[in-house]
Amino acid sequence: MSRVWNFSAGPAALPEEVLQQAAAEMLDWQGEGVGVMEMSHRGKAFTTIAQAAEADLRELLAVPENYRILFMQGGAIAHNALIPMNLMGDRKVADYVVTGAWSTKSQKEASRYATVNIAASSESSGFTTVPALSDWKLSADPAYVFTCTNETIGGVEYPFEPDLACIGRGEVPVVADMSSHILSRAIDVSKYGLIFGGAQKNIGPAGLTIVIVRDDMLGRAMPHCPSAFDYKTVADNASMYNTPPTYAIYIAGLVFQWLKRQGGVAAIEAQNVAKAKLLYDFIDASGFYQNRIDPACRSRMNVPFFLHDETHNEAFLAESSAAGLAQLKGHKAVGGMRASIYNAMPLAGVHALVDFMRDFAARKA
Amino acid sequence: MSRVWNFSAGPAALPEEVLQQAAAEMLDWQGEGVGVMEMSHRGKAFTTIAQAAEADLRELLAVPENYRILFMQGGAIAHNALIPMNLMGDRKVADYVVTGAWSTKSQKEASRYATVNIAASSESSGFTTVPALSDWKLSADPAYVFTCTNETIGGVEYPFEPDLACIGRGEVPVVADMSSHILSRAIDVSKYGLIFGGAQKNIGPAGLTIVIVRDDMLGRAMPHCPSAFDYKTVADNASMYNTPPTYAIYIAGLVFQWLKRQGGVAAIEAQNVAKAKLLYDFIDASGFYQNRIDPACRSRMNVPFFLHDETHNEAFLAESSAAGLAQLKGHKAVGGMRASIYNAMPLAGVHALVDFMRDFAARKA
Repeated sequence: MSRVWNFSAGPAALPEEVLQQAAAEMLDWQGEGVGVMEMSHRGKAFTTIAQAAEADLRELLAVPENYRILFMQGGAIAHNALIPMNLMGDRKVADYVVTGAWSTKSQKEASRYATVNIAASSESSGFTTVPALSDWKLSADPAYVFTCTNETIGGVEYPFEPDLACIGRGEVPVVADMSSHILSRAIDVSKYGLIFGGAQKNIGPAGLTIVIVRDDMLGRAMPHCPSAFDYKTVADNASMYNTPPTYAIYIAGLVFQWLKRQGGVAAIEAQNVAKAKLLYDFIDASGFYQNRIDPACRSRMNVPFFLHDETHNEAFLAESSAAGLAQLKGHKAVGGMRASIYNAMPLAGVHALVDFMRDFAARKA
Repeated sequence: MSRVWNFSAGPAALPEEVLQQAAAEMLDWQGEGVGVMEMSHRGKAFTTIAQAAEADLRELLAVPENYRILFMQGGAIAHNALIPMNLMGDRKVADYVVTGAWSTKSQKEASRYATVNIAASSESSGFTTVPALSDWKLSADPAYVFTCTNETIGGVEYPFEPDLACIGRGEVPVVADMSSHILSRAIDVSKYGLIFGGAQKNIGPAGLTIVIVRDDMLGRAMPHCPSAFDYKTVADNASMYNTPPTYAIYIAGLVFQWLKRQGGVAAIEAQNVAKAKLLYDFIDASGFYQNRIDPACRSRMNVPFFLHDETHNEAFLAESSAAGLAQLKGHKAVGGMRASIYNAMPLAGVHALVDFMRDFAARKA
C-alpha cells in the first residue's frame, strides 16, 4: 500500500490513524462482537460512541451549554432549504451575504421559502473578497443573516467573525455554513445562532451533517418541514428521531479524538496557518503560478491557483498525479488548480506539493 | 475477536466477507492510494463504485429500464414526508394501507401534506395480519397507494404483492416501504410506482436510503420540496446533485456483490424461507414460546415472540446474551423478544438461537 497526498476538496483526506483504527475495529468494536456499522443505534455501545463524539466536539469548539449539537443527514445543500424551513418562524425576510458559489446557491434555495435580501455581495469583485461588516445592509427585521464563512470553490475565507454586535445589530442571529473550515480555526460559537456543515471535509464521511444551534432558534419550523428535519424534533430526540448515520458519527468521533491528540483547535490552527503560508508565499513569489484572491481573505483550507501559462495545465495535472499528488484539478466553475489542505493534510504534504510545483516551474519556465 | 450472532432489527448484521474487504481497503482502495471515504464523489474511482452498485442492484431486483435507482439520504422516516412532497402533483388524496407501527407513522406524516384515506387497516386485529387486496377501499383518484410490505416492529409481511390490477385499479401507482425486507425475496418491480427503504437492514449502513422510482412518477414535486430531495433532480443528476453518502454506497455495493455470490435473490429467498420455517416451527411446537401473528403474514425477517411465562424474560435476555446471541429484546411498543434474521444471518445463527431457546425452555419449564 502506498498512500498519496490527497488534495480533494471533499470528500477529503482523513487522518491515517483514524482509518487504521476503523479498519481494526471493523468486525468487532471493543469486544462487543459486532462492528459499529452493525450496531443498533439505540443500544448501549452506540450510545456511548455518539455521546463521546458529541462531548468531544463540544469541547473542541467550546460550544456553550445553551447550544445543541445535532447529527443529521442531507448535507449542506439540503440544509440550504431546511434552514429557512426551520428558522423563518413568522418573519418574511432572511438576509444573505454572498461571497461565492456556495452562498449564491444557498440564497437561491432560500428564496423558495422566504424573501431574500442580499445584505452584501462580493460578486462585483469576481468573488475574490469578503465585504466588510460595516458595508452589510441588513433588512429591518430579518429572521437571520446567512454567511458562508469559507467558500470551498472560490477559496475565500472570512478574515473576521461576523459579529453583528459590531454594527449594532447583535439581536439578529447569524447562520454560518462552515462546511469546509469547521474545526480548522478557533471560533466563538456564541456569536452565531446556527452553525452547520457537511462532514466530508474536516470531520468525516459524506452523509453526516453537523448542526450547532442555539436553544432559542428551535421550535419555529414551517408546517411543511419534514419531521425528520425539524431541528427541534431532532434536538428533543438527541439526534435519534430517525436512525442517524451511525458509522459516519463513529468516524467523526475518531477524528475528534485525533484532533484532541493534536492539541485541539488552537494547535491545528497554528498548523493550518503554517501550511497556508507556505503554499501562498511560494505561489506569490513563483512568477509561474498565481492566486487571485484578496490576500486578506484567502482561504487556509482551499487554495485555488493558476499557471500563468495555462497551456501547461494538462502536463501539471498528469505529472503531479504521477508524483503522488492527487486531486489538484480546479473546480470546473473556476478552472486552473485547487489544493485543499484540510486538517488531515500534514505540513509534509504541502512541502511535497511546493517541491513539485517548484520543480515543474523550473522545467517549464 | 469473537463475533456474536447479531439479531438487531437495524442497523443490523452485515456479511463478514463484506466487513473484511472494507477493512482491507480502508486506507487504499485498489491501489488508488486513498480510501473510499476520502474519494471525491465526482472522481473516476468513486464513479466506478457507484455505477457498479447501481448496476448490481438493478440486476438483483431485475429493475426494468423505465425505473431509476436513487441513492439518497434521510432514511425511511424522512421519506414519509418526501413521498407526498414528490408525488402528490395536483392530486389531493393519497391512500394508505395500515398494517403496523411503520405504516401508521407514514400516514401520519403524509397527512401534513395531503388528505389521507385509510384504504385498509389491520388495526382491529392488533396489526397481526395484512388486509386482503379485495378489501382495500381505494379513493376515486389517489396520487398513490402506500404500503409497508414488511412491518419491522410487528413482524408482519405481505404474503402477496399489492398488484392493484387484480382489483381493477392498475392505474394507481403503488408505493412500498420495503426497508426491512428488500432483497430478501423476489419481487416484480413493475407492479410498483415507487419502492424505497433505509439501507440499514439488508443493504448496508444507516444513512443511505434507496429509492426505485418509475420514470413517469418524477417531476411532480411540491414547491416546498427541498431541491436536494426532489426525486427528479436527484435522478437527473445520477444521485450526485449533492454529495451522496459515498462510503455507505460503497458498502452497499459490496453487499450486492456478496448477494450475487450467494446466487442472487432467489437463492437468498430459499435460505430465508428455511431460516424462518426453522424458527417459527420451533416456536409453535415449543409450548414455551409463542408468536401471535397470522401464520400467513408472518415476517421472514423479523420474528417477534413471547415467553408464555414472562417472568423469565430477564433471564432469557441475560442468558442469551451470555451465549453470544445479541439484541433479542423486543421493541418497546410490542414487548417480549424479537429475532431479526436478515439476509446476512446464516442458517447456523438461527440454529444456534433455536438450540438456546430449546435448552432455556427445558431448564425453566
